[in-house]
Amino acid sequence: MDLLDKRRLLAPGPVPVPPKALLAMAQPTMHHRSPQFSEILSDVREGLKFLYQTEDPVLIFASSGTGAMEASVANLLNPGDEAICVVGGKFGERWVEICQAFGVRAVPIEVEWGRAVEPEQVEATLKRHPLARAVFVQAHETSTGVKHPVKELADLVRERETLLVVDAISALGVYDLPVGAWGLDVVVAGSQKGFALPPGLSFVSLSSRAREAMEKATLPRYYFDFRRELKAYARSTTAYTPAVSLILGLKSVLDRLRQVGLERLFAHHRCLSEATKKAMEALGLELFSQAPCETVTVVRVPEGVDGLELVKRLREKYGLTIAGGQAQLKGRIFRIAHMGYQNHFDVILAVAGVEMVLSELGYKVELGRGVAAAQEYFLKEGIS
Amino acid sequence: MDLLDKRRLLAPGPVPVPPKALLAMAQPTMHHRSPQFSEILSDVREGLKFLYQTEDPVLIFASSGTGAMEASVANLLNPGDEAICVVGGKFGERWVEICQAFGVRAVPIEVEWGRAVEPEQVEATLKRHPLARAVFVQAHETSTGVKHPVKELADLVRERETLLVVDAISALGVYDLPVGAWGLDVVVAGSQKGFALPPGLSFVSLSSRAREAMEKATLPRYYFDFRRELKAYARSTTAYTPAVSLILGLKSVLDRLRQVGLERLFAHHRCLSEATKKAMEALGLELFSQAPCETVTVVRVPEGVDGLELVKRLREKYGLTIAGGQAQLKGRIFRIAHMGYQNHFDVILAVAGVEMVLSELGYKVELGRGVAAAQEYFLKEGIS
Repeated sequence: MDLLDKRRLLAPGPVPVPPKALLAMAQPTMHHRSPQFSEILSDVREGLKFLYQTEDPVLIFASSGTGAMEASVANLLNPGDEAICVVGGKFGERWVEICQAFGVRAVPIEVEWGRAVEPEQVEATLKRHPLARAVFVQAHETSTGVKHPVKELADLVRERETLLVVDAISALGVYDLPVGAWGLDVVVAGSQKGFALPPGLSFVSLSSRAREAMEKATLPRYYFDFRRELKAYARSTTAYTPAVSLILGLKSVLDRLRQVGLERLFAHHRCLSEATKKAMEALGLELFSQAPCETVTVVRVPEGVDGLELVKRLREKYGLTIAGGQAQLKGRIFRIAHMGYQNHFDVILAVAGVEMVLSELGYKVELGRGVAAAQEYFLKEGIS
Repeated sequence: MDLLDKRRLLAPGPVPVPPKALLAMAQPTMHHRSPQFSEILSDVREGLKFLYQTEDPVLIFASSGTGAMEASVANLLNPGDEAICVVGGKFGERWVEICQAFGVRAVPIEVEWGRAVEPEQVEATLKRHPLARAVFVQAHETSTGVKHPVKELADLVRERETLLVVDAISALGVYDLPVGAWGLDVVVAGSQKGFALPPGLSFVSLSSRAREAMEKATLPRYYFDFRRELKAYARSTTAYTPAVSLILGLKSVLDRLRQVGLERLFAHHRCLSEATKKAMEALGLELFSQAPCETVTVVRVPEGVDGLELVKRLREKYGLTIAGGQAQLKGRIFRIAHMGYQNHFDVILAVAGVEMVLSELGYKVELGRGVAAAQEYFLKEGIS
């Protein structure tokens, strides 16, 4: 990355970080047990509650999102418990893998990749497995761009002895997910997505029901032990050394988001997402997701085009990193993210880049047509 | 922290970070699956092997050191296994707590706080518990400043079916710990100590014996699963999203340390440590550790002085953060660290600060006497 090698990052995490947050993280390190840091931590926790829209405590871990997913299994369940996992992509599979690693009997609800789970499927599974302790789901599947009906699932579990655990790693801060109003028991997030920070922090909100389950759960945990963290939380500190510099970045971002407000924040991502989706359709491309989320635009690679080459060429020749497909979708889709430090012109350049590479790979594309569709959207709806 | 509020950090982690590393971490985030990042990761892994003095793979986790300690238990042992833990301070206790959290039967060797374990104690315990799968020990106890005889313990376990797991979180990069030559099975380190980086990364080296044990171990693990990480390691990547910005800082530091060389690096810390210890003795103060390490100087609070007030006043009035005692040593000791981005003048100012605060708290101290002892040491031995 230098004068003649400018790179841009529009993948679904990590995401571009605002320079102000980068510089906040470049401050000299401070001691994690100092009153100064405790104050920052308390402030940041209020900011997290704001973004989560909840009064529940939100814990912070030094780990990537997967660590917080593991924590949500290990802190709530017992060996041999049943847990329902919605599996409609790579991250749904991860819930199953974690359950299995911890001796929890995962009951997968297999959903076709590209489609959302139906609340009725979950309801029927809950009836067949009335002792299931938890339902694990993604707010959306980042591997497919599909939004799951989280609110409806929360309504289903509320009257039961079942917890709803939501992987919102790439949802929190991108679109509306009112954790308090919907009564979501456990919601997991990560720094390198909607928070527009580098990876290395994960977050977990805990409802009172979740905190009760935590007290009784017998699966082994130590580093990710919610009980220890909640005790430390009450003293404005953390159980183990926190990732100080990332938390300084977190403060910078949360301060700004509290100024901006949630409405404008969500409208911003919706605008970027909609403009990109319109542009892809204008190019005659097909969106993969049947229930598209605002985090990422997932596009089918058209017949005859090498999807791996498309992503590779965008990165190597044009300096633009988007994502391809994972696992069974490898080479079949590409994914443009709308998270982090980006605005309308990032949409324009991403669309332009896709047009150029499709053209190079022999796909018939009218150059500028997708760009024009995005421009029209911005002119009509306003920029965010 | 501003023009009129300059703060300095001389606690045993977090430590001052070199500006070059701070700026490296302030670079725009890059994608963790890009060839550019893979190259950095490969380079950093070579740097870790250099610092560890081993050909064993050294894994990197996004977590604080405790996470890697937990990983060393969960990846090597089975439920109900016996494990010997050397307990001579707060971090020895942590080994016991982690074992207990995971259903491992901890066999503690209680050592008086301030003293090192005797190899004979470990040998006798190994004889009484011949099935013990592992010995868990600290390279030194940061809570007391005591170095344990790691090399001798390695010699004891080598001929047995027992692994030696060393918490070197605040030892690696500070003093000589030749992992390969001594045959240490698992060595844990953390970014916010000898690496002079902010907290958020942990490291684990794995001998071939440890990798064998890992294959058979049945304790549950997912985020910290060594098997997954080793598979990813072979492909120059990580199993889950790594803490990209911290790894950019790591590259900056390791590049520099490879230039400097280990001999000069260790001499540097030894010099700072020796000068501080001489200064404390010149003030008539007593060192707490019977087997002092180079990482930290641990000093008994003299009779009649309020040890909590000493640390607090240094921080609040003089802007200098050192550490007090933990648990049973609270108020009874203070600790000045010699890690991170510091040199001879940091020793001078720390000693001067201690002199001033002791004087304020009514302890008879000849101002400048400790400083002079440090100066004499530097003049005689040279600065590092």
